[in-house]
Amino acid sequence: MPRASRVRTLSGRAPATNRETAMDIPLHALGAWDAARRLARRKLRAEDLLRACLERITARDPALRAFVALRPEAALAEARALDAGPWRGPLHGLPLGVKDVLDTADLPTALGTPIYAGHRPASDAAAVALCRAAGAVVVGKTATTPLATMQPAATLNPHDPARTPGGSSAGSAAAVADGLLPLALGTQTAGSVIRPAAYCGVVGYKPSVGRVPREGAKLQSDTLDTIGGFGRGVRDAALLGAALLGDARLTEAVERAPEAAPRIGLAPTPDWPQADEDTRAAWSLAVARLAPRAPLADAALPEGFDGLVALQKDVMFHEAARSMTFEWEQHRERLGAPLVAMLEAGRAIPPETHVRRLRETLAWRARIDALFEHHDVLLAPSATGEAPGRETTGDPLFCRAWTLLGLPCVHLPVARGRHGLPVGLQLVGRFGEDHRLFAAALWVEAALAG
Amino acid sequence: MPRASRVRTLSGRAPATNRETAMDIPLHALGAWDAARRLARRKLRAEDLLRACLERITARDPALRAFVALRPEAALAEARALDAGPWRGPLHGLPLGVKDVLDTADLPTALGTPIYAGHRPASDAAAVALCRAAGAVVVGKTATTPLATMQPAATLNPHDPARTPGGSSAGSAAAVADGLLPLALGTQTAGSVIRPAAYCGVVGYKPSVGRVPREGAKLQSDTLDTIGGFGRGVRDAALLGAALLGDARLTEAVERAPEAAPRIGLAPTPDWPQADEDTRAAWSLAVARLAPRAPLADAALPEGFDGLVALQKDVMFHEAARSMTFEWEQHRERLGAPLVAMLEAGRAIPPETHVRRLRETLAWRARIDALFEHHDVLLAPSATGEAPGRETTGDPLFCRAWTLLGLPCVHLPVARGRHGLPVGLQLVGRFGEDHRLFAAALWVEAALAG
Repeated sequence: MPRASRVRTLSGRAPATNRETAMDIPLHALGAWDAARRLARRKLRAEDLLRACLERITARDPALRAFVALRPEAALAEARALDAGPWRGPLHGLPLGVKDVLDTADLPTALGTPIYAGHRPASDAAAVALCRAAGAVVVGKTATTPLATMQPAATLNPHDPARTPGGSSAGSAAAVADGLLPLALGTQTAGSVIRPAAYCGVVGYKPSVGRVPREGAKLQSDTLDTIGGFGRGVRDAALLGAALLGDARLTEAVERAPEAAPRIGLAPTPDWPQADEDTRAAWSLAVARLAPRAPLADAALPEGFDGLVALQKDVMFHEAARSMTFEWEQHRERLGAPLVAMLEAGRAIPPETHVRRLRETLAWRARIDALFEHHDVLLAPSATGEAPGRETTGDPLFCRAWTLLGLPCVHLPVARGRHGLPVGLQLVGRFGEDHRLFAAALWVEAALAG
Repeated sequence: MPRASRVRTLSGRAPATNRETAMDIPLHALGAWDAARRLARRKLRAEDLLRACLERITARDPALRAFVALRPEAALAEARALDAGPWRGPLHGLPLGVKDVLDTADLPTALGTPIYAGHRPASDAAAVALCRAAGAVVVGKTATTPLATMQPAATLNPHDPARTPGGSSAGSAAAVADGLLPLALGTQTAGSVIRPAAYCGVVGYKPSVGRVPREGAKLQSDTLDTIGGFGRGVRDAALLGAALLGDARLTEAVERAPEAAPRIGLAPTPDWPQADEDTRAAWSLAVARLAPRAPLADAALPEGFDGLVALQKDVMFHEAARSMTFEWEQHRERLGAPLVAMLEAGRAIPPETHVRRLRETLAWRARIDALFEHHDVLLAPSATGEAPGRETTGDPLFCRAWTLLGLPCVHLPVARGRHGLPVGLQLVGRFGEDHRLFAAALWVEAALAG
């Protein structure tokens, strides 16, 4: 894919308040924040923005394969209605992609597996309905790995077609990265938002667990599943977060750059030895840029933190095995060997062990809170390195503990790796304080940009 | 309805190991435990048991209105296959009713509202699939209040057609009470299993929160929703629990009467003044029967416990309002005034308040655990009194705190009230120790019987 388009795409997440910059880039690559401001002031028509995205989709998606279903005509009619009507909310007129594990009443919901090919739910998932109520125009469903697990989807990485976009929210991350859409929804049980955001070079946001209703989402783990999404910059993702959480503080937090630097706790985590030289270089670059401007301190992760990755796996595998009982009983031969192996591992965990794991999880969620008395946010790796080849979706290693802890996370692109692919880091916030996380993320984004 | 049938029905929950008693009662009124033993030994055919239930349904349900959908022929074919095949699990050959908020691939799932009339999901809810994998024969879908909220369903109370069977799991409780089925699934967000069990005079079981996967259930509250069910005796409900939790310890706990009496903590709760004379009489009777045999002690509920009812309401109303965004946006005029009022109350709660409520909930769930160092189970009221008239589903007051705390609960019938309707009490167990709760419940059930 031509390098020019990449640069254009990435410029969409640069300082988004610069009106000249925003005017210069093509409509399809306009970030959600800039687009939302122009839409609210009626300087931009939702229909025109949508047409630009649809043209981009027509041009790029036959190769990229980010979408599994589209509704261009219905979306255009909605865009025209929004142009003619009152302002609806933070996503007014913004085209949105929906990961295909979230129910939609007007589009098929196939969960990335032939088991559910052509399935049409009776309602929208609550997360989709919240975005629509905030004015979003759902353009289509984006590719997911089968049942949001690890077998790769057909989507390519827009930066290198031989590489994975990550998973399980593959299509959403790739579509936002390649300028097909300004925003898209994803879900995370291990690292299914943050990891594809890292591999595709966009901002990914996983909210505090329990803040976004999961009605109408295909549940894999009652304890872990969290609905979030993707934008090209921090402000863009904040709009989506404000709609999902029903919390205007997320957009208020990024209205202007925060005056004081956040107290940043450095949390490379006990798995740091698994970070390759690209992630290490991004880490060093970030620390070098942040150190002169912000109070950095090593985060004193509680003893036992090194057991959280195994704990997350146990909780996830056992709950996935139980959540997918219907598919296990009725469609086992269509699940694929890796998923069957994961479900077998989960089924082998006795219920008394799982109860102990649940108790440990809840105790850890309470215990981690004290860390945020010393730090506003934690800086942590998002992935081991650049996106690997398409035979895998990559390793969610660096996301597992934070997902288990239920903490809000924002991935920020930081640099390019040895092969020219995006590498970044995540910021982790205090439970329930997603708005403070966004304020800190905006500050860090600006500091990293220079 | 004739008194004889009531007596027969209620005798089904008497000492279930008495083979003579079991032999004397008609097949449709056989408790799940006795039926399961006979089915496992091939002394009873699943087809015959099912036919007896279907005949009872044909005779009674036109008046009772417990079912909203039936699949008699398909169920009979499954029963025959079970009779011809190997033992499948704890529910082998047992007819099961499924509350119509749980997805079923082979029956409509209308959630008690015309909004979803005729809707057919693509899969079974995980809870349904777990029961089927354990050998249950799904007979039909049972009536629920609209979207599992408070507006009464059409179902009558089998003990008095002018009274409510409770809600929201109205059809499941009534069907089990009236001998239409030995077992049925329900869900609880406030008191939707325990309260209808109390009003209908059956055993109700709400598991520890998080132990039964909610995939395929219509979610009202991510924090509170719990799938459980109904049987006519403690052993019967233990079978259903073992299948739902995948935990054989639940049936092992009731294989024989426990030797030692449980340490019972008396927890009338700060809302005790709301208990009417029928609930007070049942309480006094129970305490009088238990006191000579078991160590009873007043449970020292932590300070602030009296705020848990309000906390539960806040969490439930806010999460319900967000979970039902699709229905609110698309079908508000079909929701009914009481539900609209509840959702408006939930929408009025700001997100920062809800985050504080979530933190309080998690802190309380950790804090309550210490109580179980002193008591194996707590004895508490289930409902304020007998079932009220059909203009309401009754008050879940006495269930709200335990649901918020996520603790496992078993309702036991104790006595009859002034109008001849059942009144009972609930036992509340430690989180994750559902099997110990069942052992204690079996002991208490026997002690109450004399």
